[in-house]
Amino acid sequence: MYRVVASRAFRAGAPQKAFGCWFNLSRSAHTLPFATLEADEISGSKPGEVYNLVQGKWTGSSNWSTLLDPLNGEQFIRIAEVGEKEIQPYVESLSKCPKHGLHNPFKSPERYLLYGDISTKAAHMLSLPKVSNFFTRLIQRVSPKSYQQALSEVQVTQKFLENFCGDQVRFLARSFAVPGNHLGQQSHGYRWPYGPVAIITPFNFPLEIPLLQLMGALYMGNKPILKVDSKVSIVMEQMIRLLHYCGLPVEDVDFINSDGKTMNKLLMEANPRMTLFTGSSRVAEKLAVDLKGRVKLEDAGFDWKILGPDVNEVDYVSWVCDQDAYACSGQKCSAQSVLFMHENWSSTSLLSKMKDLADRRKLEDLTVGPVLTFTTEAMLEHMNKLLKVPGSKLLFGGEELKNHSIPSIYGALKPTAVFVPLEEILKDGNYELVTREIFGPFQIVTEYKQDQLPLVLNALERMHAHLTAAVVSNDPLFLQEVIGNTVNGTTYAGLRARTTGAPQNHWWVK
Amino acid sequence: MYRVVASRAFRAGAPQKAFGCWFNLSRSAHTLPFATLEADEISGSKPGEVYNLVQGKWTGSSNWSTLLDPLNGEQFIRIAEVGEKEIQPYVESLSKCPKHGLHNPFKSPERYLLYGDISTKAAHMLSLPKVSNFFTRLIQRVSPKSYQQALSEVQVTQKFLENFCGDQVRFLARSFAVPGNHLGQQSHGYRWPYGPVAIITPFNFPLEIPLLQLMGALYMGNKPILKVDSKVSIVMEQMIRLLHYCGLPVEDVDFINSDGKTMNKLLMEANPRMTLFTGSSRVAEKLAVDLKGRVKLEDAGFDWKILGPDVNEVDYVSWVCDQDAYACSGQKCSAQSVLFMHENWSSTSLLSKMKDLADRRKLEDLTVGPVLTFTTEAMLEHMNKLLKVPGSKLLFGGEELKNHSIPSIYGALKPTAVFVPLEEILKDGNYELVTREIFGPFQIVTEYKQDQLPLVLNALERMHAHLTAAVVSNDPLFLQEVIGNTVNGTTYAGLRARTTGAPQNHWWVK
Amino acid sequence: MYRVVASRAFRAGAPQKAFGCWFNLSRSAHTLPFATLEADEISGSKPGEVYNLVQGKWTGSSNWSTLLDPLNGEQFIRIAEVGEKEIQPYVESLSKCPKHGLHNPFKSPERYLLYGDISTKAAHMLSLPKVSNFFTRLIQRVSPKSYQQALSEVQVTQKFLENFCGDQVRFLARSFAVPGNHLGQQSHGYRWPYGPVAIITPFNFPLEIPLLQLMGALYMGNKPILKVDSKVSIVMEQMIRLLHYCGLPVEDVDFINSDGKTMNKLLMEANPRMTLFTGSSRVAEKLAVDLKGRVKLEDAGFDWKILGPDVNEVDYVSWVCDQDAYACSGQKCSAQSVLFMHENWSSTSLLSKMKDLADRRKLEDLTVGPVLTFTTEAMLEHMNKLLKVPGSKLLFGGEELKNHSIPSIYGALKPTAVFVPLEEILKDGNYELVTREIFGPFQIVTEYKQDQLPLVLNALERMHAHLTAAVVSNDPLFLQEVIGNTVNGTTYAGLRARTTGAPQNHWWVK
Amino acid sequence: MYRVVASRAFRAGAPQKAFGCWFNLSRSAHTLPFATLEADEISGSKPGEVYNLVQGKWTGSSNWSTLLDPLNGEQFIRIAEVGEKEIQPYVESLSKCPKHGLHNPFKSPERYLLYGDISTKAAHMLSLPKVSNFFTRLIQRVSPKSYQQALSEVQVTQKFLENFCGDQVRFLARSFAVPGNHLGQQSHGYRWPYGPVAIITPFNFPLEIPLLQLMGALYMGNKPILKVDSKVSIVMEQMIRLLHYCGLPVEDVDFINSDGKTMNKLLMEANPRMTLFTGSSRVAEKLAVDLKGRVKLEDAGFDWKILGPDVNEVDYVSWVCDQDAYACSGQKCSAQSVLFMHENWSSTSLLSKMKDLADRRKLEDLTVGPVLTFTTEAMLEHMNKLLKVPGSKLLFGGEELKNHSIPSIYGALKPTAVFVPLEEILKDGNYELVTREIFGPFQIVTEYKQDQLPLVLNALERMHAHLTAAVVSNDPLFLQEVIGNTVNGTTYAGLRARTTGAPQNHWWVK
Repeated sequence: MYRVVASRAFRAGAPQKAFGCWFNLSRSAHTLPFATLEADEISGSKPGEVYNLVQGKWTGSSNWSTLLDPLNGEQFIRIAEVGEKEIQPYVESLSKCPKHGLHNPFKSPERYLLYGDISTKAAHMLSLPKVSNFFTRLIQRVSPKSYQQALSEVQVTQKFLENFCGDQVRFLARSFAVPGNHLGQQSHGYRWPYGPVAIITPFNFPLEIPLLQLMGALYMGNKPILKVDSKVSIVMEQMIRLLHYCGLPVEDVDFINSDGKTMNKLLMEANPRMTLFTGSSRVAEKLAVDLKGRVKLEDAGFDWKILGPDVNEVDYVSWVCDQDAYACSGQKCSAQSVLFMHENWSSTSLLSKMKDLADRRKLEDLTVGPVLTFTTEAMLEHMNKLLKVPGSKLLFGGEELKNHSIPSIYGALKPTAVFVPLEEILKDGNYELVTREIFGPFQIVTEYKQDQLPLVLNALERMHAHLTAAVVSNDPLFLQEVIGNTVNGTTYAGLRARTTGAPQNHWWVK
Repeated sequence: MYRVVASRAFRAGAPQKAFGCWFNLSRSAHTLPFATLEADEISGSKPGEVYNLVQGKWTGSSNWSTLLDPLNGEQFIRIAEVGEKEIQPYVESLSKCPKHGLHNPFKSPERYLLYGDISTKAAHMLSLPKVSNFFTRLIQRVSPKSYQQALSEVQVTQKFLENFCGDQVRFLARSFAVPGNHLGQQSHGYRWPYGPVAIITPFNFPLEIPLLQLMGALYMGNKPILKVDSKVSIVMEQMIRLLHYCGLPVEDVDFINSDGKTMNKLLMEANPRMTLFTGSSRVAEKLAVDLKGRVKLEDAGFDWKILGPDVNEVDYVSWVCDQDAYACSGQKCSAQSVLFMHENWSSTSLLSKMKDLADRRKLEDLTVGPVLTFTTEAMLEHMNKLLKVPGSKLLFGGEELKNHSIPSIYGALKPTAVFVPLEEILKDGNYELVTREIFGPFQIVTEYKQDQLPLVLNALERMHAHLTAAVVSNDPLFLQEVIGNTVNGTTYAGLRARTTGAPQNHWWVK
Repeated sequence: MYRVVASRAFRAGAPQKAFGCWFNLSRSAHTLPFATLEADEISGSKPGEVYNLVQGKWTGSSNWSTLLDPLNGEQFIRIAEVGEKEIQPYVESLSKCPKHGLHNPFKSPERYLLYGDISTKAAHMLSLPKVSNFFTRLIQRVSPKSYQQALSEVQVTQKFLENFCGDQVRFLARSFAVPGNHLGQQSHGYRWPYGPVAIITPFNFPLEIPLLQLMGALYMGNKPILKVDSKVSIVMEQMIRLLHYCGLPVEDVDFINSDGKTMNKLLMEANPRMTLFTGSSRVAEKLAVDLKGRVKLEDAGFDWKILGPDVNEVDYVSWVCDQDAYACSGQKCSAQSVLFMHENWSSTSLLSKMKDLADRRKLEDLTVGPVLTFTTEAMLEHMNKLLKVPGSKLLFGGEELKNHSIPSIYGALKPTAVFVPLEEILKDGNYELVTREIFGPFQIVTEYKQDQLPLVLNALERMHAHLTAAVVSNDPLFLQEVIGNTVNGTTYAGLRARTTGAPQNHWWVK
Repeated sequence: MYRVVASRAFRAGAPQKAFGCWFNLSRSAHTLPFATLEADEISGSKPGEVYNLVQGKWTGSSNWSTLLDPLNGEQFIRIAEVGEKEIQPYVESLSKCPKHGLHNPFKSPERYLLYGDISTKAAHMLSLPKVSNFFTRLIQRVSPKSYQQALSEVQVTQKFLENFCGDQVRFLARSFAVPGNHLGQQSHGYRWPYGPVAIITPFNFPLEIPLLQLMGALYMGNKPILKVDSKVSIVMEQMIRLLHYCGLPVEDVDFINSDGKTMNKLLMEANPRMTLFTGSSRVAEKLAVDLKGRVKLEDAGFDWKILGPDVNEVDYVSWVCDQDAYACSGQKCSAQSVLFMHENWSSTSLLSKMKDLADRRKLEDLTVGPVLTFTTEAMLEHMNKLLKVPGSKLLFGGEELKNHSIPSIYGALKPTAVFVPLEEILKDGNYELVTREIFGPFQIVTEYKQDQLPLVLNALERMHAHLTAAVVSNDPLFLQEVIGNTVNGTTYAGLRARTTGAPQNHWWVK
């Protein structure tokens, strides 16, 4: 039987320890009490190491793989990859968790408070400059983006944790009841955990995506096994150590590094009651089949922006377009993939301003950087196919970055925009090509005439992945028309609308 | 002790009876099974009679008062007015209801279902053309307004009842719970009734206001005593008979006709745990003092409308202004009392269109009619005071209706608009005069320049009663500025905004 | 493009028509204005016919199949089965609906009110004795159960519709918003439809399950294609005609009869954005794979009941056990499959009372009747396997019904209970056998000692389908122990707990 | 006009400052950066001083009053009491705040985030041992209670603040919307502030009550003036300084020390739109009248506990009774005032155990201490009146504390319990006497026979103040009977039920 008692024991001890160290933190200038490495010192000569966590113990592996520094190709991180023959402890660990979870409203409710405490302490840790700098730099090392972009990820994570301080975790477990038909009868509705669950997350937000999903699962009483894309898993490995330091019972989460095949085998054997997968549509579909539908998917998006007929604040709109398309080198799920400009915008300086802004991006400050899932060649090849479409033209970019030492397994492309005429986009032969998502600094631009809005809406309806979108207009009738005739995870509306930037408060409002 | 058993007995019997009559209703062309009179036949020679209901019995009185027909002065309704010495049965009836009510989530929950049934049946009754015509005409007889306006009141009431069909009453009693600190501990939040309560309602919506407030009170387990302004109480007297026919236990509601002094005495003796008062601010303040704060007030409003800088759809906006100011002869709580026009509207045909629409109103179809709380003289006197303010002028109206037989205790005024300059309105000497609410077909009109919006906002801030308002504009920044800097019960925003028209779905959304 | 205008046109016309007939209904003793057949007259000589509905038109088929009367084997219903080559119109119809649906908060919001009206009218129709009798009898003809059980299904459906009268449909579309980071920024959360969807429902509740799922889909703006198990689809075919009569636009719902292979092909081609499947786990798993996870499943349950240590109200508990296990011949998803008795109950008359109640069930009044998915032989074979388990014994039943004319493709079994010792149930060799769901009048009974509760909980944890359960006890600590350590869709708790009986108010509380 | 800009300016500056000091806090062992005094050093020779805060400035007064140390009578605190002639700055400050508040969803929404930050920082401050000890000791100095009881107050305050970290303040401002009748129409519901408000709080919880009410008001955009009972206002004066340190704009809150008459005058002149008063019923009634109902009242309670027929855990129940009646010397609003014992408890050791526990309370550790609103004589006189009721008897206590130096303006009584027979309690002559609330270590005990529950319920129904109650039983039918027939702010149910202990999560669940 599962020993809840054991995990409670962890709770009792941990906060004391954490508290004792609160002040050490400020006295010592050199080390973070939870960390096992220094973000800035990882290098070919002093590689970082990433361990696995199972049944409360950090473990290595018989098979360590090596990661290349995306900026210079040095072998800078070693990862303990779990092989197919080593999954048994993980399967056992997950199976020990019953379907009714580690806690629920009728079992160990004090754990809701424990998680309120952990969130409070972890949020405070991330608010300390030294800690937030540590994670910001660690993110930059493995998922190159500007300091500001990486810091934002840490701050969103901090705010998310702040949202679950105090009693807020137990408030998540709020139930309801309505009177029944007779005296003594009531119907109650409770939130129950799944029990054993798996979380699989991608490379582009190494901290925010896994942390938010992990904590959400834990709050409600699930026992998750977490697998982060090995290219960036060093970030969450350190974050889990921080959570332990803040009181997280060490047996509540397992953490694994492995290839996809091994993870698939593990899932088939351990049979978690729910798997949350964030990543490519291709893998998502395979998982849906293998897990017989017991999977929640957060997949990609070919995110569109429409500029409406009311032209205003051209400077601001250009800046947002640049950010949406090229921040994080276009490697946000919500990055702007296609821009539909109303003809009124064509006569403005919009495109030239966008070009100027793109030109200011540079490798030195990582405002543009390595692309982790497409090579330079692959992106240029895609661009060349697009340029063969009648009427297409290169607006800017379209070349490899200069003077870089990015290894060739990664991509290195200047921020690029290709214009394709609307009529051509809609043609069957072109549509699939134009709407292929390129997870890099790459966007399509097109124009529509006043009477062509139905064509634009038709183009949107035919897309497959609907993650985010933006309708840039303050005209209430135009907004209504576009919003009422489209479907997206998130639609930003208004003159200052953007496709990116979903903050922590979008995630857990409900 | 209160006998819940008795009221349950009524429940078991009533639906059968009601159902048996369902079909009679269609066969008989002449009478409604619940009604004791015909709306169109009430007259000096055949006066209608209004009874009281207490402890399950309809009763007369030792003192019948008489009501004048507002259209021709005939003595057309007799009312059994309860005197100060006759209140004992009402005091007793109310006192018999315990503080925990006739039902609550732990007592007689089957009554939530009973009230779902009553609402279903009553809503269906009101959907029958004969029944809706009966109440529409009855409303017109005592609170003269156009057929359409009176019918709307019946329809809103029907929709309200439809909203509480089936299980919706018990869903109102939905509770919540959150996990406690230890195993076995949970905190629950329940909605509990007040027990004995009083409801006092005005003349202008004889059916909608009392019915909605009455049912809301009953749904949650309260025992109300209802007093409607005697001028119109005949409508609710008949409606309560309809509710009985649909299964309402006869002891659940008491209904009283009396003067204010008697009602005050009753309240002091019976000491209901909450009184809901809709009516004049003057009485409201006295009640707040007498009942030591145990009162909820729905008082009047000096309702404003602002036309923003973006001129559009002048015809439509004029029509809404006419409806807002003069429908029901201006005797809605939400009637437009003052109109602030942006200067851009001054050069349009707005005011002349408003004048044309006002001219089309006539006594024959009651698009303008008797004013029940102001005499003609009182309104003209107020107008003349306003016209002495420098820069003021009469826009239209300002005369007594022609060829009418409205008795002199009531008012008979053509739809009237007076222009007063904004700067004058703001002066201390004028402000109280200009913002005095006239419950009749009367409005103030003023104009503001592009840079005078702060003066308008200042005028709004200084008002006392904030019921409804309208900001007529599609400009998002203008809307934000006005909405963010004002306070109202309901603010309508957008080019088609109005001050009147709160439908049933505003009331019970939460 | 889809023509919303067309469906609105239907709306405008239909209510008038429906209303005109309201009264005809009471005058004519013979026919229902929407129905195309008489429930009691269907027979071999006058078979009922079931059509398909697509793109607003009722259509037959080139291939009519025939259904046997489950009580006497007559060929009493003809069904227009759509073949694989005839699916094109259905694929087209579904494809015409855009992903943003027929309505959403920014598109055709008047349709929320339309659906409030349809629900009001349809609920009222079902409240008329002639209409409710029609559907009750029609259900009995194809899914034999007692009049009371069939009537309950009609009444639950009526109550469900009552819950969505008036404004309640638009209240379902309630959205929320929170202030953003800056002036002018807010985040809104809206409920959006899937657009084209499919609903597939089983035989056991021919009216309730499809109607509730269909209306829920329609309320939120989806366009559903509905497929009901052909054995009982005649009921929903008539119900859709009633809905049309009450104002449902004829193009809003498609209705199809076909075999599973054809339906599968249709789904693969039309690619609905969500499919709601209620039925066997086997088909459910195949659908999850074929539809790549875009499916919501309501599958079976091996529903358990535990009698706690506090013995009380033995008569009542026996009666509930009999109802839970054998009402509808055990063909409810929520039927009691296994009973865990605390040893304190063994010494009472519980089992003998259960036997007496089972003996009173008879074919004449359909308190026991045909089993539609298991033959008599299959059930007896399963029973015999169970009786080979050491310590097992037949408690009662275990024989074919006497003097019946149920065709041999269906089952005819007396209400049956088999005792299996708890220790044997838990053995690996036996567990799968004992927990196999038999969708008929069949249950397992076992006993546990005071110290064996952990074994019981272990047995529950190992089950696969967790639909409903009952914990029969008023002991708060026992309840907490069992509830906190199990997982179910619905758990009934308390001395009067049952496994069956989920009423309309369970479905849509949220 | 009010300058929102000014308050925003404060925001920008404050967090930086606060953050800079975060670490100082840990380095310096001696002082708290926000505090102006040391809790343990206040004494006759070094009195503490309490200032007022108005329009952003801490100010003294022309008239300082002096407070006696409740433990030894020393003049240990000086208070700057504002006189009737000095209220003008306070009136002006309040009047500057418009009715739409300092922020609302359409005005300065960034202030919701500011208050999330302030809460985060203040919660963290209270989590630091030095800070929590400071407030715990300060509370003990002015409102003598045990260290544990005073610490609990600090911790509840900390948890409350944790509940409003991050985005939780803006989530409070969550609005909703439902679709309207036509395209382009939606109804939105927003939470709006009152604008200028007043908060008046009592002596017994010097930190928790004012802080929770103050922050709740601020979160939603109100501008409060706070008046805490001068006997304890030193605690909130220091707490406001802490809030300033954590970023609270100095103009957002005014803080005043004055007598009741002055405060009344201030309220009449400044006319806040809502006043929240916690305190005696007598003052509450006067305020309701003076403020014409614009007041929310949290008054006293004569809190009852019923022990049901099922006797269990006598030790635990005795301990809870002792805590409920005598912790904080009975000076909680929720303190147990009367205990109804089922006869089954009479034969147990309950009363003797309660006596033993009461005997262990002593002045040294403040488990019993000064009574701030009743003198010893007043309490003994009340006791003696009770003892004249036939059948009454002293169970324990009933004497002045020994060896104390509590000044005679305060009370000093041993924990006391008086038994009064149930039949006597119910007599008209006795009822008012017995149910008089004594805000000190004093309770009534009575007994009821199995068939006397209706008499008990009758006694409860006749009470006036219904704050908290406890039904000590695990019998579901008994619980249902008592809960369904009573009314209270909070009812605790179950064998471990208590009357006291409302934690932070009760306050803001909704």
